[in-house]
Amino acid sequence: MKRILVANRGEIAVRIIRACRELGIETIAVYSEADTNCLHAHLADHAICIGPAKSKDSYLNMQNILTAALMTGCEAVHPGYGFLSENSKFAKMCEECGIKFIGPSSEAISLMGNKSVAKETMKKAGVPVVPGSDGAVKSLDEGLKIAKNIGFPVMIKASAGGGGRGMRLVFNEDEFAQNFTSAKQEAEAAFSDGNLYIEKYIEKPRHIEFQILADEYGNVVHLSERDCSIQRRNQKVIEEAPSSLLSEGLRKRMGEAAVLAAKAVNYKNAGTIEFLLDANGNFYFMEMNTRIQVEHPVTELVTGIDLIKEQIRVAKGERLRFSQNDIKIKGHAIECRINAENPDKNFMPSPGEIKRLIVPSGFGVRFDSHIYQGYKIPPYYDSMIGKLIVYGETRQEAISRMNRALYELIVDGIDTNIEFLSRIINHKDFIEGNIDTSFIKKNFNI
Amino acid sequence: MKRILVANRGEIAVRIIRACRELGIETIAVYSEADTNCLHAHLADHAICIGPAKSKDSYLNMQNILTAALMTGCEAVHPGYGFLSENSKFAKMCEECGIKFIGPSSEAISLMGNKSVAKETMKKAGVPVVPGSDGAVKSLDEGLKIAKNIGFPVMIKASAGGGGRGMRLVFNEDEFAQNFTSAKQEAEAAFSDGNLYIEKYIEKPRHIEFQILADEYGNVVHLSERDCSIQRRNQKVIEEAPSSLLSEGLRKRMGEAAVLAAKAVNYKNAGTIEFLLDANGNFYFMEMNTRIQVEHPVTELVTGIDLIKEQIRVAKGERLRFSQNDIKIKGHAIECRINAENPDKNFMPSPGEIKRLIVPSGFGVRFDSHIYQGYKIPPYYDSMIGKLIVYGETRQEAISRMNRALYELIVDGIDTNIEFLSRIINHKDFIEGNIDTSFIKKNFNI
Repeated sequence: MKRILVANRGEIAVRIIRACRELGIETIAVYSEADTNCLHAHLADHAICIGPAKSKDSYLNMQNILTAALMTGCEAVHPGYGFLSENSKFAKMCEECGIKFIGPSSEAISLMGNKSVAKETMKKAGVPVVPGSDGAVKSLDEGLKIAKNIGFPVMIKASAGGGGRGMRLVFNEDEFAQNFTSAKQEAEAAFSDGNLYIEKYIEKPRHIEFQILADEYGNVVHLSERDCSIQRRNQKVIEEAPSSLLSEGLRKRMGEAAVLAAKAVNYKNAGTIEFLLDANGNFYFMEMNTRIQVEHPVTELVTGIDLIKEQIRVAKGERLRFSQNDIKIKGHAIECRINAENPDKNFMPSPGEIKRLIVPSGFGVRFDSHIYQGYKIPPYYDSMIGKLIVYGETRQEAISRMNRALYELIVDGIDTNIEFLSRIINHKDFIEGNIDTSFIKKNFNI
Repeated sequence: MKRILVANRGEIAVRIIRACRELGIETIAVYSEADTNCLHAHLADHAICIGPAKSKDSYLNMQNILTAALMTGCEAVHPGYGFLSENSKFAKMCEECGIKFIGPSSEAISLMGNKSVAKETMKKAGVPVVPGSDGAVKSLDEGLKIAKNIGFPVMIKASAGGGGRGMRLVFNEDEFAQNFTSAKQEAEAAFSDGNLYIEKYIEKPRHIEFQILADEYGNVVHLSERDCSIQRRNQKVIEEAPSSLLSEGLRKRMGEAAVLAAKAVNYKNAGTIEFLLDANGNFYFMEMNTRIQVEHPVTELVTGIDLIKEQIRVAKGERLRFSQNDIKIKGHAIECRINAENPDKNFMPSPGEIKRLIVPSGFGVRFDSHIYQGYKIPPYYDSMIGKLIVYGETRQEAISRMNRALYELIVDGIDTNIEFLSRIINHKDFIEGNIDTSFIKKNFNI
């Protein structure tokens, strides 16, 4: 493999270009008209403008990206995360053009993209899923029977749902009938589809995800977990590895379930199995992300394994270089997502010019980013401008190091969430590892 | 220990402040009038101006520095490297003021500072030293006898020598008398002291140094070696750990000799034993550096041990947290010294304003520095503006990573040695590990 097109922008494009350069592989960057000065376009060996600023016209424009790859003789495309990374149609188009899509097959993406099909597949494979009805329930009576069977509290959800509509949290039998009826009416009004299904409500869950690597010969390993419980409105804010909660036994069982999940869909390349973990140590498959993730560096720091390089090696047809027993977790890593946003204004994005930038470094500190002093953050894309990642011998040292790194990081000219991150890192409950997905809502009322 | 004065500037001051902050220790920075905008003065909790730009008036002004430490209630002083770090008088003054000098005792500094006393001490302790006469030789006949005894080639050196005067390299017996006589005349003319001594000439040596850590209770460990053979006029340019040449057996023997050397002078805190290693695997004590060294990060990356934190822990009176068997070397690290200098103009220093700065990062890359975009490098101090350090699974990966990191590093507005470093890193002999201290002279004719 001599040349790869990087079908993304910003920090993940920079991350991929770095790995390719170290492997002696040429890179073709693509960029929108708004990204002429974005670092990824400058770091790559060549860069091609693929359209106007809006994502749909450039970073989501499959035709333009594939044309760029074919014109420049690329043998592979790395999709990064977001944009086309979990688009099975794009993966299929690459396959049909004879260009290697660095990721799983289009079939695996498609299967895991449909959340109810994915859940059924996992259940059949023996991976624990959130208990609930098998698809839509036919009547109030059947719903109540299932709810009693799985135990309260339960969630009533609209099959066609989204955005919280047609969704009800029910704490006991007495409240069930009324909530079922109102949810059905709301679902019918919102989606013209009154179908409802029932799921056990997982209280105060931790978001624990397992990193998977699979080659093209059926070998699958997991690289242990990441704890991504610090979220704001389902968006991850801080991630760490390992989780402060998992015992060795639980880690082993969850890891085995993750490998089982990947094998069940004949998975290839890097992927992530997301679980919910309840307070009693029960875990449930939530979904699979069929791509590299934003938070992959914390796994890199505790395993010593360069995940982007491994993705490329696997895509080249190489066998995995390690078995499960070779993978050892050492130390502790934490990542903070640095966003151009204003926490005091409901986290409104804050694009604009970076007037001054001082980046922390030193032992155990890594800053993955595409920004530089004088860079103008365009208003069209995600507000994440970098990932500050630290490593320490222990969780305590990692927290101290993150604290000093956040103290050193200066990004002037725009609003950022740096101070907000600092408040989380210094929160007593965070320090004690007493966290679940409601941490930010509970402690910061946002 | 609640508060430490950092008696240095630039990157090492920044490095120490970072470690202190992570340990929850307050820092007092000192700065000269030329360093108002240097990063170390801004990162510390407090900063005190200690005098005019010239080092002798500020960073070498013991009285001012100690006054600053006493006035601010500091319990300890960290001297970094250079400046007062190996000044036994300063260490003694600190001791007398009841301020902990973070380093060895003034006696150990003094002993190791006198190179001939240090050599005798090491010889007595059983550490291999370069074979030669015991001090000055009395006559031509005695000199010849010693030369034949230790074997040609030998160096004839002036006891009071320096700058190469009164120094002769002699390859065989026939050339001896003539060279001895002319060296004596030259020494008499230059130093009014015709005393000469004889040392075996070590051909194509590698500079191999061992990092030592010792607590205040007699426990001493080594943290394996650094290979610093890439030098220009005895100045280190690129350092790496481990050395590509050492076998496990040789590493063990040299490490044991290094520990023996440290124990012989009742050494405390961090230090380095420098050896010359010849092509046949014979090694000779050269000198001991009784301080932290510029190149300490390569050891940190392959051992996972934060040397500055360990220095502080030892100075606080803590016992070493590990024994020799706990210290494991993993992977490979390389450091390039980034200098503001012009390789095309005989490496003339190039102070001035940094107009644009783009710093590499990502997996395995660390940049220890005090510079930022807009910073004006003053003309008064060392030309080193940063240390680019990379880690890789193997030496080959570390070289690839250094290559891409050097490619990414942009420092505009001044001249730098970045391209020169890149030429070394890509040299066939460097890649093959075929290096000795004459590498730069031989390959670049400088």
